[in-house]
Amino acid sequence: MYHLKIKIDDKIIDTPAVWLADEKNGIIKMIDQRNLPWKFAMFESHSVRETAWAIKNFVVRGAPTIGATAAYGAYQAVLEASNKTNFWKNFIRLMELLEASRPTAYNLFHATNAVKNFVSKLLNDDFSINKIRESTLNFVKDYVNNIIRQNYKIGEYGEKIIRDGARILTHCNAGALAAVDYGTATAPIYLAHQKGKKILVYIDETRPWLQGARLTAWELSQAGIPHYIISDNAAGYLMWRGEIDLVIVGADRITLNGDVANKIGTYKLALAAKDNGIPFYVAAPTSTIDPHVDNGALIPIEERDEDEIHYVRGEYDGKIVSIRITPTNSRAKNPVFDVTPARLIDGIITEFGIIAPTKIRNLLNRSKPLTTE
Amino acid sequence: MYHLKIKIDDKIIDTPAVWLADEKNGIIKMIDQRNLPWKFAMFESHSVRETAWAIKNFVVRGAPTIGATAAYGAYQAVLEASNKTNFWKNFIRLMELLEASRPTAYNLFHATNAVKNFVSKLLNDDFSINKIRESTLNFVKDYVNNIIRQNYKIGEYGEKIIRDGARILTHCNAGALAAVDYGTATAPIYLAHQKGKKILVYIDETRPWLQGARLTAWELSQAGIPHYIISDNAAGYLMWRGEIDLVIVGADRITLNGDVANKIGTYKLALAAKDNGIPFYVAAPTSTIDPHVDNGALIPIEERDEDEIHYVRGEYDGKIVSIRITPTNSRAKNPVFDVTPARLIDGIITEFGIIAPTKIRNLLNRSKPLTTE
Repeated sequence: MYHLKIKIDDKIIDTPAVWLADEKNGIIKMIDQRNLPWKFAMFESHSVRETAWAIKNFVVRGAPTIGATAAYGAYQAVLEASNKTNFWKNFIRLMELLEASRPTAYNLFHATNAVKNFVSKLLNDDFSINKIRESTLNFVKDYVNNIIRQNYKIGEYGEKIIRDGARILTHCNAGALAAVDYGTATAPIYLAHQKGKKILVYIDETRPWLQGARLTAWELSQAGIPHYIISDNAAGYLMWRGEIDLVIVGADRITLNGDVANKIGTYKLALAAKDNGIPFYVAAPTSTIDPHVDNGALIPIEERDEDEIHYVRGEYDGKIVSIRITPTNSRAKNPVFDVTPARLIDGIITEFGIIAPTKIRNLLNRSKPLTTE
Repeated sequence: MYHLKIKIDDKIIDTPAVWLADEKNGIIKMIDQRNLPWKFAMFESHSVRETAWAIKNFVVRGAPTIGATAAYGAYQAVLEASNKTNFWKNFIRLMELLEASRPTAYNLFHATNAVKNFVSKLLNDDFSINKIRESTLNFVKDYVNNIIRQNYKIGEYGEKIIRDGARILTHCNAGALAAVDYGTATAPIYLAHQKGKKILVYIDETRPWLQGARLTAWELSQAGIPHYIISDNAAGYLMWRGEIDLVIVGADRITLNGDVANKIGTYKLALAAKDNGIPFYVAAPTSTIDPHVDNGALIPIEERDEDEIHYVRGEYDGKIVSIRITPTNSRAKNPVFDVTPARLIDGIITEFGIIAPTKIRNLLNRSKPLTTE
């Protein structure tokens, strides 16, 4: 296990973004991402319903962290359903709660499908409820450990494309918080920094939820990596001025043709990178690939409450408050993901190596690691 | 004179963004744009120094409003210098205060140069100080009235490209507040609405200063025009989904080759419009054209204080407060304009008609109005 070191006051806490704190009772702990960087707090979930609520309400977010939280939530579902008659029907109903929490990140469905298939097989093999509980616990622990190992591999492959002195732009938070540990887009950055490469990171603030300004900036501060926060509007200008060498972002869903759904704004960023000849990379484990969807136009895009546009949260006078920025009779629209077409992406950094987006289809048909191209 | 009607509580105020409230003493009044939409207030300037401060600190902003305010400020400079020996030297020193207030908007220099040339000519012709004061007063009043008339012409030409039912995207505030009255990008919108065309306006919130979310949304609310505020990240997605028919933005400086400096984020917006085949128009009077600059790479781009990124202002509990959104040890960068290359612009809507950006050079060599193309 490789954990991000988090400095809280003067103490260093060695923790992933989410973990199973009590295996017997299925209690999940997670870093509460709603109040960072102003306040560091843990959130505890004791039930599937609380876990689904936590995912829906951004206590945790980021595709791989959502996947890990859903896997732990699926274990809670096994525990809760095992106290009832008609285990499978109750289990599936609880799983539907998790699946309804966020529509765009494929990792959520990858996790719930993996656990459903696993449990269904155990039932077919006539395992006892006790044995199902125990086996599912081991399965979800492996599942989450595997996410962390994948991130580390992404970091190893991605680190090679970061030259000493590189100025890297990232969007949103595809960091340790978003991906249990190490992050996806940040894994190459953390490893390059660890190797002693001098890097500078530009972070898009990422309205409306400010995942860049709040979370990625907080992570890089903790790690001591030099960075500048910029408005989402500024990236194109900085590229045009020759101040960006490389873009790395995460992904919420990748389709078979190599299109990538990611945080709203990624598409315009990719257009600006293309217009300025700057390499644009997506970092994501293969669990982000949706094998059922051919192209990006078919991905469901989440629209969230318009109040996320009208209000901004932050620290005022020692308190965390929500301020109104817009006229009270104006309306807002708040789609939170967009689709970046494969033609704008130079490579997808996976746990198997860096592949062209057009090779995604082939990747799914292979079992052994690809060579870096 | 055509004035925007502004509803304040239940009263309708008929006012431009800036005007000369006391001609004899050179007192300028302006709508204070810093606290809109939360609070409507007027700001009074009694001196060149106060006027330069007001421009620098965003009491007023927007290229044509900056130009008008600078013209009135130049009249204040005549009044202040006329009390001193060595009128010209003192006048020029005061003009330099105005010229140092904001570096990017060309309209500022257009106004100060116009008044400097006018006063210099009067001096050469041996006019008395009294006569210079009186003539300059009439000159700056005409200058500002002309800005308003130009906006109305921009509105008339631009209205023709807005079809009934059009969904129009705009960035920042190129409205009445930014252009004394009617606006530049909003003039076609106001006229289309007045003609009874059914339109829907998407407004980029425009971080960091939120001119879209605060000012354009406020103006359109006042005018009763349907609109949605969106995060700056969302425009590309909405274009891709086919929800935008037309983009109209303002300009702070236009160079001879047709490149346009405008609020940061305009360049990425133009890339997204091009990628989706959506017409992209810039609305600006010809006073925005810098006849001394060949292309956009040569325009000075203003960088403002990084605290504009770290803090967001808004209303909380009946007060206007500034909240911290970023980690306290993170740095930020805050360039506030970018350059959109001519190749991404379908037309520039001027007071002489809609012209291709490549025809800017010709426009300066003509004296009579162009036909719309």
